[in-house]
Formats: sequence, C-alpha cells, structure tokens
Amino acid sequence: MRDFSNDHSALALNTATLGHNVDGHGAGWPIERVIDACAERGFGGIVFWRREIGGRAVEIGNRARAAGLAVAGLCRAPFLVGPLALPTRSAIMDDFRASIDMAADLGAPVLTIVTGGVEPRTLGVSESLKRVAERVAEAASYASTCSVKLALEPLNPVYGGDRSCLVTIRDAIDLCDAIGHANVGVAIDVYHVWWDTTLEAELNRVGAGRILGYHLCDWLAETRDVLVDRGMMGDGVADLKAIRAAVETAGYCSLCEVEIFSAGNWWKRDPADVLDTCVERFRTVC
Amino acid sequence: MRDFSNDHSALALNTATLGHNVDGHGAGWPIERVIDACAERGFGGIVFWRREIGGRAVEIGNRARAAGLAVAGLCRAPFLVGPLALPTRSAIMDDFRASIDMAADLGAPVLTIVTGGVEPRTLGVSESLKRVAERVAEAASYASTCSVKLALEPLNPVYGGDRSCLVTIRDAIDLCDAIGHANVGVAIDVYHVWWDTTLEAELNRVGAGRILGYHLCDWLAETRDVLVDRGMMGDGVADLKAIRAAVETAGYCSLCEVEIFSAGNWWKRDPADVLDTCVERFRTVC
Repeated sequence: MRDFSNDHSALALNTATLGHNVDGHGAGWPIERVIDACAERGFGGIVFWRREIGGRAVEIGNRARAAGLAVAGLCRAPFLVGPLALPTRSAIMDDFRASIDMAADLGAPVLTIVTGGVEPRTLGVSESLKRVAERVAEAASYASTCSVKLALEPLNPVYGGDRSCLVTIRDAIDLCDAIGHANVGVAIDVYHVWWDTTLEAELNRVGAGRILGYHLCDWLAETRDVLVDRGMMGDGVADLKAIRAAVETAGYCSLCEVEIFSAGNWWKRDPADVLDTCVERFRTVC
Repeated sequence: MRDFSNDHSALALNTATLGHNVDGHGAGWPIERVIDACAERGFGGIVFWRREIGGRAVEIGNRARAAGLAVAGLCRAPFLVGPLALPTRSAIMDDFRASIDMAADLGAPVLTIVTGGVEPRTLGVSESLKRVAERVAEAASYASTCSVKLALEPLNPVYGGDRSCLVTIRDAIDLCDAIGHANVGVAIDVYHVWWDTTLEAELNRVGAGRILGYHLCDWLAETRDVLVDRGMMGDGVADLKAIRAAVETAGYCSLCEVEIFSAGNWWKRDPADVLDTCVERFRTVC
C-alpha cells in the first residue's frame, strides 16, 4: 500500500469539492484559478465536470497540463436509463457521444458513467442494468477510438430509484463482464461503497487495469442530505485505509480523487482552506 | 409461491403504517380502534411498537387475539451500538431485556432488532457488527426462555452510519451464523433490500426457519426523505413478486407485514382508506 504521509502527488481534485464554482455554489473561482491553486499545492491531477468546460475543452485541458496537473477524468456521461434520463434513446446516445468527445478534447483518459435509475415501467434493477450494458457496449468502441475509457461507477443504494440502478461493486464488475469491452471498467467511490463488506473479495475478481478511478470523501455518521452532505476524509465512519488497501491490492496505483459534495459545510468555506485541508487529510487519514 | 389474489389472510399491519397514532402523526386512533379496523378487514395479524404499548402489553395482546389477529411481532429492541444507542452497555442491555419482556407479555413471537450504526471511535462496520453479535448472543438465551425470537433486520445502507451497521442480507446471515443461537434469525424488508441482486442467492443459505419476518412497502423512484417517504406497494420500483418469491423459496410461509413510514402522504390520509388500500395492493401487486 502506498505511503502518502509525505507525498500527495497522487492526490487529485474533483472540482465538485469546491462547489463547482459555476452554479451559485462555492466561491465563484474561475476554473483557471482552481487549476493554479491545485498546482501550487502539489496536487497531481484534476477532474472536471462538463458544465464547467463548455466549448473550452482543449484550452482547459492544455491549461491544466501546463500547470503540471494530469487531467484525470471528466464527469460525466448522461444518465443512460431511468426517470431522469433524456426522453429518447437517440438523445441519450447523442449526449453520450458528446461527453466522450469532450473528454477526448480535454485529454481526459476516463469518462465517468452514472447509469441513471430504474427504467420507467420496469421493476427492480436487472432490466435497467441490461439496457445500460447495451448502451455502454454501443459507445465503447467509439470511446476507444477517442482514447477515452468508460468508468462505471456504482452509487450508494439510496440512489437506486432515480440516479443509479448500479449500486454495488459486484454488479459493476458483472456489468463490465457482460459488456466485455477492454475499454470499460469501474470507478470506486468511498461514499458509495464504504458499507460493503464484500469489497475486498469482489475487487479480487476485477482484473488488472479495470479500476479506472478511486474517489475519496467520507460518510458522515449522521448524514443530513444524501446528495450534498458528504464528509471530508477523517470526519466520518468510512475505513479509508482499508478501502484503499483493497483497491490497491486489486492493482490500482493511480490518482485518488477527492470529491465532496457539501452544500452546508465545505462549499461555504474559502476554497484555499478546503484545498489545504484535502492535502492534510490525504497525508494523514487516507 | 402463495396466491394472495383472493386471500389476504397472510396480511399483517405494522402500526407505523398509520403514523403510530401516538406521537402527532396519523389520525390519532386509539390502538383498540386500529385492532378492530384490521380485524374487520380480514387482516391476519398485527405488529406493534413499544411506544404504543406502555404498561398494557398483556391487555393489548389479548385484545388483538380476541379480535382474531395474530400478534406477529414487536418493534423493536434498542439500538445495540452506534451514536444513537443508550450511553452505557448496561443501559442498552437492560432496555434490550425490557423489550424482550414486553414482547413476551404481548404474546409476540418475534422481537425485531435494528442494530444501530457504527460505534463511535471505530471505522467501517465490522467492529460494530462484532459488538452486535456479542450483545445479541448474550440476550438470545433469555429471549428463548421468554419464547421470543430475535429478528436481525438489515437496513438500507443509507442508514449505515447512525441506525444500522447491518446493511445487507449477506451480513445478516453471517451475523446469525456468528451468534449461532437457534433463537436468532433475520427479517427481510422490501425497503432495505429491493436493490440487492444477491438476495435470492443469499436466502438460499439462510436455513429453514431463520426468516422471522417479511416486511412490505415500496421504494419510490424519487424518494424525498429516507426515513419517512416510503411508498405503498405498487407505487415504486421494487420487484415485489420477485422478492417474495425469493423469500418463500427460502422457506418463509408466514405473515407479510405492511410497514410504511410516510409523513407526507399515507400518514395524512384517513386510516380506513389506508387499510383498504393495503388490502387491495396486497391482493394485486405483492
């Protein structure tokens, strides 16, 4: 297991941690200032959201790399199924390809997929997962030609209805196997998997190179809002070192991405202090 | 699989479905009226909460049976671990025994256990589950002498931090095995397990007689509040028939208990209409 106590070059910022800075949350820093602030602190990488990029993907990607940051990924493909997905299959797939194009323009090697919830007029998660498999399989070759890998991220089961019919690592690995494309893997997020006692066993079968991201935050014992009350690493009940040990034992040795949605706390703070805290916690509790 | 389309004698009411009637929710029906209303409609059983019973356990139990209802269970033992548990081990165990005594006085064959969340100053769920095992094991023999079985109910992982470090059927069965007492089993609640694609496989190893309860409601696709926005059967995305098939294949053939916490909808309605709807949905979608 890697020792981060004196080295945070494996730390990446997911810009959501600063409240996105574009939609009324956070301090309203322009993306260039976020990039510079990460670089100044020795972060190794950064992950953007589509809403921040607009038509400036090439420019922003180059700007980040010039500052010394790896562009580690892009959030995210559109919901592929479920009640919050775009109204038609063709609209979904068009936007899916547009998100792949943006990742390619940005120079991001990974596009995260949040599947979307249970399909209207179906019950349970199985039928929805089949449709996800079919839609990801259709996009996988195109993404491959763009040098963009697709990372299926299982979300906490609380999101099963509307945001993600994919709710466990086990199902994510099974979904990868069903898709059967070398360009498709999984992303592991502490917030979504901290409770899963099968994590280590499941990751044993993930296979080399199929973990495409590892996301850090913490689960607050008394979570007030499941969307925007995530904790800073060390403030909650997730066993961060045990989870990272499982992820690294399975072969992951890339960036660790801090992603904290926190409308009531971290998004209200000075972004400079939030970034400093990320560094300090990364070195001490992750 | 049992056919309920013309027979709802297997239907039981968990009184929480009517807002408990004692704490500002619901229509304020006295418990006797709830009993009579269930009996009039042909419910087979009823499950009470401790807060409704007070010192009247023997009287209320007899009253329900005289009306023709089985007293199927009592909710619930105190949190055994976690941030919401009583402050000392002895206080927890005293209240645990008091809840067993109440179930015995009521003539309820099953006491439900919600474990409580992650223990303060520990990380992850494993250490907390060990403490749960030790405390349940200590109480199991006493419960046995009272003819009360203990049902460990895994809760949706969203409650992992504060209310239940036990979040999957798999962990519940493992916990039963670790306790190793014939008086301890599991309760399966649609709300908590609907997303779990391993349900059928896990229940295959539960063993005869260890499923001590099956709880009905539905998971609303866009759940607004994870505590008190449960759906009526048929209004959500849970595959109710598939879940019941798995439970019955594993050997369960007892009452099905409707338990709907719904501050914004069902608790606001006329309890008579709620009970009628339970019967209709039980016959058609469960």
